Amino acid sequence: MENRLRYLTAGESHGPALLAILEGLPAGLTLSSEIIDAELARRQKGYGAGRRMKIEKDHAQILGGVMEGVTTGAPLAISIANLDHEKWLAKPVAAFTTPRPGHVDLAGVVKYGYNDLRPALERASARETAARVALGAVCKHLLAQFGVQIGGYVVSIGEVRADVASIPLEERAALAEQNDLRCPDSAAAIAMRARIQQIMQARDTLGGEIEAIGFGLPPGLGSHVHWDRRLEARLGGNKFKANTILAIKLARAVYFMLKNQTVFDPEQLVRATTHK
Amino acid sequence: MENRLRYLTAGESHGPALLAILEGLPAGLTLSSEIIDAELARRQKGYGAGRRMKIEKDHAQILGGVMEGVTTGAPLAISIANLDHEKWLAKPVAAFTTPRPGHVDLAGVVKYGYNDLRPALERASARETAARVALGAVCKHLLAQFGVQIGGYVVSIGEVRADVASIPLEERAALAEQNDLRCPDSAAAIAMRARIQQIMQARDTLGGEIEAIGFGLPPGLGSHVHWDRRLEARLGGNKFKANTILAIKLARAVYFMLKNQTVFDPEQLVRATTHK
Amino acid sequence: MENRLRYLTAGESHGPALLAILEGLPAGLTLSSEIIDAELARRQKGYGAGRRMKIEKDHAQILGGVMEGVTTGAPLAISIANLDHEKWLAKPVAAFTTPRPGHVDLAGVVKYGYNDLRPALERASARETAARVALGAVCKHLLAQFGVQIGGYVVSIGEVRADVASIPLEERAALAEQNDLRCPDSAAAIAMRARIQQIMQARDTLGGEIEAIGFGLPPGLGSHVHWDRRLEARLGGNKFKANTILAIKLARAVYFMLKNQTVFDPEQLVRATTHK
Amino acid sequence: MENRLRYLTAGESHGPALLAILEGLPAGLTLSSEIIDAELARRQKGYGAGRRMKIEKDHAQILGGVMEGVTTGAPLAISIANLDHEKWLAKPVAAFTTPRPGHVDLAGVVKYGYNDLRPALERASARETAARVALGAVCKHLLAQFGVQIGGYVVSIGEVRADVASIPLEERAALAEQNDLRCPDSAAAIAMRARIQQIMQARDTLGGEIEAIGFGLPPGLGSHVHWDRRLEARLGGNKFKANTILAIKLARAVYFMLKNQTVFDPEQLVRATTHK
Repeated sequence: MENRLRYLTAGESHGPALLAILEGLPAGLTLSSEIIDAELARRQKGYGAGRRMKIEKDHAQILGGVMEGVTTGAPLAISIANLDHEKWLAKPVAAFTTPRPGHVDLAGVVKYGYNDLRPALERASARETAARVALGAVCKHLLAQFGVQIGGYVVSIGEVRADVASIPLEERAALAEQNDLRCPDSAAAIAMRARIQQIMQARDTLGGEIEAIGFGLPPGLGSHVHWDRRLEARLGGNKFKANTILAIKLARAVYFMLKNQTVFDPEQLVRATTHK
Repeated sequence: MENRLRYLTAGESHGPALLAILEGLPAGLTLSSEIIDAELARRQKGYGAGRRMKIEKDHAQILGGVMEGVTTGAPLAISIANLDHEKWLAKPVAAFTTPRPGHVDLAGVVKYGYNDLRPALERASARETAARVALGAVCKHLLAQFGVQIGGYVVSIGEVRADVASIPLEERAALAEQNDLRCPDSAAAIAMRARIQQIMQARDTLGGEIEAIGFGLPPGLGSHVHWDRRLEARLGGNKFKANTILAIKLARAVYFMLKNQTVFDPEQLVRATTHK
Repeated sequence: MENRLRYLTAGESHGPALLAILEGLPAGLTLSSEIIDAELARRQKGYGAGRRMKIEKDHAQILGGVMEGVTTGAPLAISIANLDHEKWLAKPVAAFTTPRPGHVDLAGVVKYGYNDLRPALERASARETAARVALGAVCKHLLAQFGVQIGGYVVSIGEVRADVASIPLEERAALAEQNDLRCPDSAAAIAMRARIQQIMQARDTLGGEIEAIGFGLPPGLGSHVHWDRRLEARLGGNKFKANTILAIKLARAVYFMLKNQTVFDPEQLVRATTHK
Repeated sequence: MENRLRYLTAGESHGPALLAILEGLPAGLTLSSEIIDAELARRQKGYGAGRRMKIEKDHAQILGGVMEGVTTGAPLAISIANLDHEKWLAKPVAAFTTPRPGHVDLAGVVKYGYNDLRPALERASARETAARVALGAVCKHLLAQFGVQIGGYVVSIGEVRADVASIPLEERAALAEQNDLRCPDSAAAIAMRARIQQIMQARDTLGGEIEAIGFGLPPGLGSHVHWDRRLEARLGGNKFKANTILAIKLARAVYFMLKNQTVFDPEQLVRATTHK
């Protein structure tokens, strides 16, 4: 219970809103909706994002944990409204009973006893990641205060593989921002797009690989003393939206190493990370 | 992370809303705002409740975890709007710099480095308990499905002590509802009210004792095998709003014993609790 | 998983040994079996302790986490041998089938499906507390490095109540060490002893109350920002062997506030607690 | 704290013993040292295992949690003696001050303030995995009761890659047992051995890949409702000794789905996994 940076998310894809509570931020960090919205906008620009991405411009409303633009140390509460919720309510909907392959539809129904597939897919939706991107944005912002940069990019889609080895590590994330496949190798990005269009016509899906990186980290994150303190153990286990997840996990690790500051003091943090 | 019934709360006393996320409910439980609002109304009726209690009638808006009136097993998200938030925003406010004795005001400022006492008292406010009462209401409702009843009452205020021993255990909670001091001994309630009025004029405060009880519990809650599995260890440690806290903790314990059902099936639960 | 000072205990009353692992100590703290054994000896001197207490002189063997008399930051492992284990193995034992009132005997059998009461009472035995006393000793020792003192004493046994109010808070724990009832009021101790002898002849038991106190604590332990960070919430819930439990819990809280030091540096700790 | 199958390990490479406590096993499972020792022996037979592996034949002494060959539901305590501990104590040892690349030596010293590299490498040693293999053996044994089989094998060492795709999934783990590289492709195993010998002469090291698999798992492990309940999230994050770690994690997941049985009843478990 003493963990720093615990979080819970809630909300369905077509419910009124997505919600997230992040408990354990220090007091004194400048924070605003704009900082979060910038990352939510990035999320909406990826290739293959549903049509819905285009119509909704996500906005993170801060409902707790920030006063006069500065964190107070109290839990941060974020709400992201689902703009088409009203429209959805109006529609008469027949029960949805054909489970899609590769989705949680069937497993959800079996496990939770639903009569309709909808409760499963409403929560297992890509839309749910917006809440985690919002929290990742806050953690990226926290890490940025003392010089840690987080980035990520696509390495492969199906059998199409980017040549990332020939691109310096420091440039990959920025290059990836230049196309909607978020691939630093622009030639590979074109081939990936073609491959995705092809597979969509065959009504199938493709796997892929992403890499997420952090720069400027202090030495000594994690520890060898117990299996669950190893940095690898703490970073593993959550591959979806990998760079925002990395931001959350690194913020937690850095923060822990930085001695659970309750007051945010960038100078002290920088000093702690540099001269530790 | 496998814990059932984890929860986080957020929100400030004069912020836009109080929020709560409860993760780990089973699917299939009938749930509505009305069930929660009934307990929020009880909370607002206690003697000594601030004037504000009278003007706001709390309403729990369910933002996630319930579809067509039934829980889905996804996290339950509740928002309780702060009705006077708008008014508050309009007021010009001078920094509040005189810490009140017996409050977190000073400790909060020292620990979190605030320049104003407000961020501490906005979160340490009695208003925050509304979020926990809302979650307690959900847990009471869950427990009620298989015959567990939760109640609580005031035993003493300052040196005024109720004669609860002469009232049967089963009747105390119901009797306590008949006065705004929530004391089952009506004569003591009158003396308590007088004592509170007296102390208020002296600009001081009084302590007190409450008891919270659960009826109809299955045998075997908790365990002797490890120190933190003992029921006493699991119930201890949170005395404020004791009966709603008891509901949350017992729901967690009962639920755990009932084998972490993902589908809510009252018959199975009753069977499990009775014949285990 | 990032929690400091997690611990698990294991071992049965008549098994080969009691074991405890404490994960999260800082490196650089001087530690030896003697420090722990002193508290184990105190545990064995209480009135009403079984005859066994007299025959066994407990010794904490340190099996991990300490090199050349100093903690390394790795998990601390302690083993306390059960000296009469061998004798026990030799005895032919009939199944024990009469549950004692006020013990876990019956509940254990119902919950874990034993055919014999022994597995329940072997683990629910008072002997198990030796493992927790050992860990409490380590935590007391850690706290003592920066001036925190932990103590405890008996306030009442059955209807016999000590007059503790007339004894200064600072003197109570030391006075309590002067009699085997650990009661600071020596007259009350005599009455308590008589009352216990009387109830034993009636083959019944008595309840009681103890108080545990900590001196020299830094201000700011716990926090108002979330319900489970409140100091009261974190200290509650474990009343047996209350002063050693208090030591463990306070060490955790102090340690957390002191920013999870990985290297033990008393000067830094004192500075942190004083000028924070 | 309600988590099933929590565990802590302790002990140094040349200390008296390695220790592990596993909390949360059901009562009624047959368990003996032999079951664990069989997996400890497998661990000692791998190619490249240090000379020490040959001289020590590990034995898991069960110190708690098992009575008359059957688990009681109380924490399982295991001790694995370090046979050369005595010899080690006798040796005069100079401080070890040259950190090895690719090891925790330097990071440990920087983080924990050691004057000697030994405290870091004593805990970060491959020897420490014996404790986790012992717990993995218990979990494999638990899973086997209801038909779940766990296996693992080497896929690549450096640039040498086994052709696993041509070997049926069910046969890989058994084939891997036939050589000390634990590679199901025997030709690749020969090439891997040659490559390792070559790199050792160059005083360098190689990376590699392993795969761990589980057969016979019940459907519905993990859940979509919250990010940290996803099976992938729960399995990720611990790659060393992957098949024993997989056994522990799957046992936890299966066990959780099987409703935290306190009494072990294979029939009930099989029924639960099959007809859920």
